[in-house]
Amino acid sequence: MVYVNPHFLELPGSYLFSDIAHRVAQYQEAHPAARLIRLGIGDVTLPLPAAAVAAMHRAVDDLARSETFHGYGPEQGYRFLIDAIVEHDFRRRGLDVGPDEVFVSDGAKSDTGNFGELLSADCRIAVADPVYPVYVDSNVMAGRAGTLGPDGRWSRIVYLPCTAEGGFKPDLPDERVDVVYLCSPNNPTGVALTRDELKRWVDYALANEVLLLFDAAYEAFVRHDDVPHSVYEIDGARDCAVEFRSFSKTAGFTGVRCGYTVVPRCLKVRGADGRHVALTPLWNRRQCTKFNGASYITQRGAEAIYTPEGQRQVREHIDYYLANARLLREGAARAGLEAYGGEDSPYVWLRTPEGCGSWAFFDRLLADAGLVTTPGVGFGPCGEGYVRLTAFNTHEATAEAVERLATL
Amino acid sequence: MVYVNPHFLELPGSYLFSDIAHRVAQYQEAHPAARLIRLGIGDVTLPLPAAAVAAMHRAVDDLARSETFHGYGPEQGYRFLIDAIVEHDFRRRGLDVGPDEVFVSDGAKSDTGNFGELLSADCRIAVADPVYPVYVDSNVMAGRAGTLGPDGRWSRIVYLPCTAEGGFKPDLPDERVDVVYLCSPNNPTGVALTRDELKRWVDYALANEVLLLFDAAYEAFVRHDDVPHSVYEIDGARDCAVEFRSFSKTAGFTGVRCGYTVVPRCLKVRGADGRHVALTPLWNRRQCTKFNGASYITQRGAEAIYTPEGQRQVREHIDYYLANARLLREGAARAGLEAYGGEDSPYVWLRTPEGCGSWAFFDRLLADAGLVTTPGVGFGPCGEGYVRLTAFNTHEATAEAVERLATL
Repeated sequence: MVYVNPHFLELPGSYLFSDIAHRVAQYQEAHPAARLIRLGIGDVTLPLPAAAVAAMHRAVDDLARSETFHGYGPEQGYRFLIDAIVEHDFRRRGLDVGPDEVFVSDGAKSDTGNFGELLSADCRIAVADPVYPVYVDSNVMAGRAGTLGPDGRWSRIVYLPCTAEGGFKPDLPDERVDVVYLCSPNNPTGVALTRDELKRWVDYALANEVLLLFDAAYEAFVRHDDVPHSVYEIDGARDCAVEFRSFSKTAGFTGVRCGYTVVPRCLKVRGADGRHVALTPLWNRRQCTKFNGASYITQRGAEAIYTPEGQRQVREHIDYYLANARLLREGAARAGLEAYGGEDSPYVWLRTPEGCGSWAFFDRLLADAGLVTTPGVGFGPCGEGYVRLTAFNTHEATAEAVERLATL
Repeated sequence: MVYVNPHFLELPGSYLFSDIAHRVAQYQEAHPAARLIRLGIGDVTLPLPAAAVAAMHRAVDDLARSETFHGYGPEQGYRFLIDAIVEHDFRRRGLDVGPDEVFVSDGAKSDTGNFGELLSADCRIAVADPVYPVYVDSNVMAGRAGTLGPDGRWSRIVYLPCTAEGGFKPDLPDERVDVVYLCSPNNPTGVALTRDELKRWVDYALANEVLLLFDAAYEAFVRHDDVPHSVYEIDGARDCAVEFRSFSKTAGFTGVRCGYTVVPRCLKVRGADGRHVALTPLWNRRQCTKFNGASYITQRGAEAIYTPEGQRQVREHIDYYLANARLLREGAARAGLEAYGGEDSPYVWLRTPEGCGSWAFFDRLLADAGLVTTPGVGFGPCGEGYVRLTAFNTHEATAEAVERLATL
C-alpha cells in the first residue's frame, strides 16, 4: 500500500496565484465587457530585450546544424553564462563569487522551492510576514511547518511581522531559528533593506549559525545607493548566505525561464555529528541528480543581457517599470490610500481602506475599478489589510489604473 | 545551528555521468591526439527537426513583440502543447488520457527525480537492477534507501535483477514493496517489455496496491508491435501507473529541455488514515509551488514535432539512430562480444569479456579503441560485467566504432 507524503495534505488546496487567476476568470466570464487592468501577478509585459531576442535566434540556429548542435549542457549551466554572471553581477561590484559557486537554473522559484531539500527536516524556519508563498509552502511539503492554526500561521514556522510601524522590515527573531528566508527588495511589500539593515542580519546569522536564504530576484530595481544588490556586499555573508537571482523581472524572462543560485564554497552547515558540511557540493549533487540544466537557448538569451547593448536595454525596461511604480504610488496617495514600496521595487503595497479586508478590497477593486491586484493576506497573516500592486503593466494601462483608483 | 539533510551525506560523491565526463576529460588531456568516439552518455547528435527549429524561431519572435509576448505560462504547460500530446501520443492510439492529466515540464529527469516528494518517506521502493541512477539517488536523498552495503545495494531498496538468463527483464518482487520504477524500453539494457510482460506488472500492481512509476522516455524507438508505447495500453494501468515522457530522445531536445508526466485522475494512494488520496491534485500542487512552467519557446518547439512534417522528421531521426544501434549490435557480435537490446531502443548492452569488470572494460575501450562507453555497474550491481553503448553518434562514427571494436 502506497502512503502519501502526509504534509502535502496539510497544504490548503491551491496556490495563491492559481486561486486569483480562477477568481478573475470567473469575473471576466460573468462580465465579458469589463476591461480589466492586471496589476496582480508579478508578470512582465514588455517584450524581450532585442539583444536577448537576437541571441536566442542564433541559439536556435546553432541547434539546427550538426556542427553547432548542443545537447545536454552542464547541469550547473554553461560557462559562457556563468562567466558573464560572475563578471557583471559580482566582480564588477568588487564581490568575490567564483564560477563554481554559481548554479544556473530554470528560475528562482525552482531554486527557492528546492533548496530546502539539503537541510534537515527539523530545521526551524523563519520568514518575513507577509512573504512570497513558495518559502512557506515548500517547507510545509517538507514537513517543517507543523500544523496550520486558525490565524493562518504554521506552528513550527517563526513569522517576522513586517508592519507599517516597522517600515515593513522584519526584526531579528526573538526565538531560536536555523534558517531565515529574506527577500530584498521585498516581494510583496516592495520595501528594500539598506546596507546597515542587511548587515544586522548577516551579523546575527554569523553569531547564531543561522543560514540566510537571500532572494534577490528584484535587485535590478535597486536605485538607492544604500540598498545592496547582493547579500555578498555585506562582510561575512559568504559564510552564512545563499543568494537566489532571477532573469524574470530583470530581463522579462518570466516565460523564458532562467535564474541562478550562488552557494559560496565556504558556506557550511552541520552534520548530525556536529561536523561542518559544505553546501556547495550538496547543491551540485542535487542539481546533477534532479535537474538537467537550463535550455541552451535560454542561456544564450541570458548571456546577451550582459552585453553593453543588453545592459542598456534592461536598464530601460526597469526604468519603465519603476516609472509605473511611481505612478501607482503617487496616484494611490492622491486617491487617499496609503502606499508603500515601489522605489527599489516593482511592487507597491497598498493599505486597504479602514475596515476592509484584503480579499474584500481585492473584490472591490475588481468589481468597481476593473483592477486585478493580489490580496496581501495571501502572502501571510500580516498582509491582511493590504493588497499588492505591480508595476509590470504598460504606462498607459498603469495611468488608467491610477485614474480608476481616483474615481473609486 | 543548521543541520544538513543526513541522507545527502549517504550518497556517493558524484553522479555517474559527471564521473565519466571527468574521467574522459582527464584521458583526453593526457592524450590530446586521441580521436574519441562518444558512445557513453545518452545524448543525441542530430540537429533539431526543422519543424521545431522553425517553430522556435517564431516563438522567439512572439516574445520580441508586445502583442504576442508570453510571460509566465501555466505551470502545467500550455494547452496548445498538451492538446497535441493528448491527441497524438494517446487518443490516436485509442488511449484515454485527459488534458488535465498531462503536466509539461523541463524534462523527465526532473519529474522522475521530483515525483517521490508526493510519497511517504516510508515507502518501500523497488527498482530494476541495472537502472537509471536518478530513481535510486533521488530516493536516497529522500531517506527511503536505508544504508549502502558493500555490494553497492541500499538496504531498504528492493532490487530486481535483470540478467542475461532472464532476458534482462525484471521479475515481480518476492517481498512487499509499495512503488516500482519501470523503464521500458529500458535504460541501460535497451530491452523492452512486451504487452504481456507489462500486463503482468499492471495486474500485480492492482492486486497489491503498488504504484508503478513508468518511464517511457524511449517509447519513440519502439518498432515491434507487441511492445507498448505507453503503460496505458494495458487495462487497469490508469489505476496504478504514472507515466513519464521526454522529448529529449524523441526530438533531440536534450539541450532544449522538455518532457511531460501523466498522472491519471483516478490514480490514488492512501492517506495515513487509510483513505484514498488522488495524486493528480498533489502533483499539480507540487508543480505550482516549485516549478514555473517550461520555456514558451521550448513548448512551441515541442508542439511542432506533432505536425505531420515534425512527425516525419522525428521518425527519420529515430530510424537513423536505430540503424546505428543495429550496426553496434551486429558489429559487437562480429567482434565476438555478446550484445543485447538496441531493437526498440537506442541502447546496446554489451557483455564485457570474461573476467573483465565494467570499469576495467570502460578503461580498455577508452585507451585501446578511443571509445567512450558507460560502465554497466554505474547503473547498479547487476550491471557489473556490462557496458552500455549508445546509438546517438553519427553513422560514420558508429561505423568506425564498430571497426575499432573488431580490431580490439
